[in-house]
Amino acid sequence: MIAVTPEPPYYAVIFTAQSGADDAGYAETAARMLSLARAQPGFLGVESAHEADGGITVSYWRDLESISAWRRHVEHQAAQREGRARWYARYALRVARVERAHAFDGTTI
Amino acid sequence: MIAVTPEPPYYAVIFTAQSGADDAGYAETAARMLSLARAQPGFLGVESAHEADGGITVSYWRDLESISAWRRHVEHQAAQREGRARWYARYALRVARVERAHAFDGTTI
Repeated sequence: MIAVTPEPPYYAVIFTAQSGADDAGYAETAARMLSLARAQPGFLGVESAHEADGGITVSYWRDLESISAWRRHVEHQAAQREGRARWYARYALRVARVERAHAFDGTTI
Repeated sequence: MIAVTPEPPYYAVIFTAQSGADDAGYAETAARMLSLARAQPGFLGVESAHEADGGITVSYWRDLESISAWRRHVEHQAAQREGRARWYARYALRVARVERAHAFDGTTI
């Protein structure tokens, strides 16, 4: 659930989506995209949470070049088209440079 | 669900949490914090998705000063302590500068 990432700076892609009416094929494609993303150069980790009507996926990347390469990946581009045509009613995608990060692991310091 | 934000740059606070065993009082405090955050100078919007064992909340802010002021808010600080003591087994908090954003509203261009 919580990605283990290196010291900043690195990049986050925040993808927030509201589901559409048609989810046929979505789970399989989402799993395939996750598997492909993990194998991309510069991929650092991913976090996601989904409710019935939508969800948030944040993926972390070494640099903007890694993000651009993943966006242009042929199989990912096909999934993006399917997403817009069928799975998502709306979404927002934001690319952000992580400047500070800290974690709490259950131990109050 | 999807926050309507101005043109970048602005800032995102990505809060990813794994729930602890004790959720007494959590929902009330979370609602109160959301209400307080919305009233803070520089608050731009919030998105969140929660599953049974954790969730992601991304809040958007005009600048780092707004984020610092909210972090130091007395009632928010008390909630942060409660969170570490009771509600969260683990969490990660990342502050990121949003550099690019785009939205899809259901219309394939």
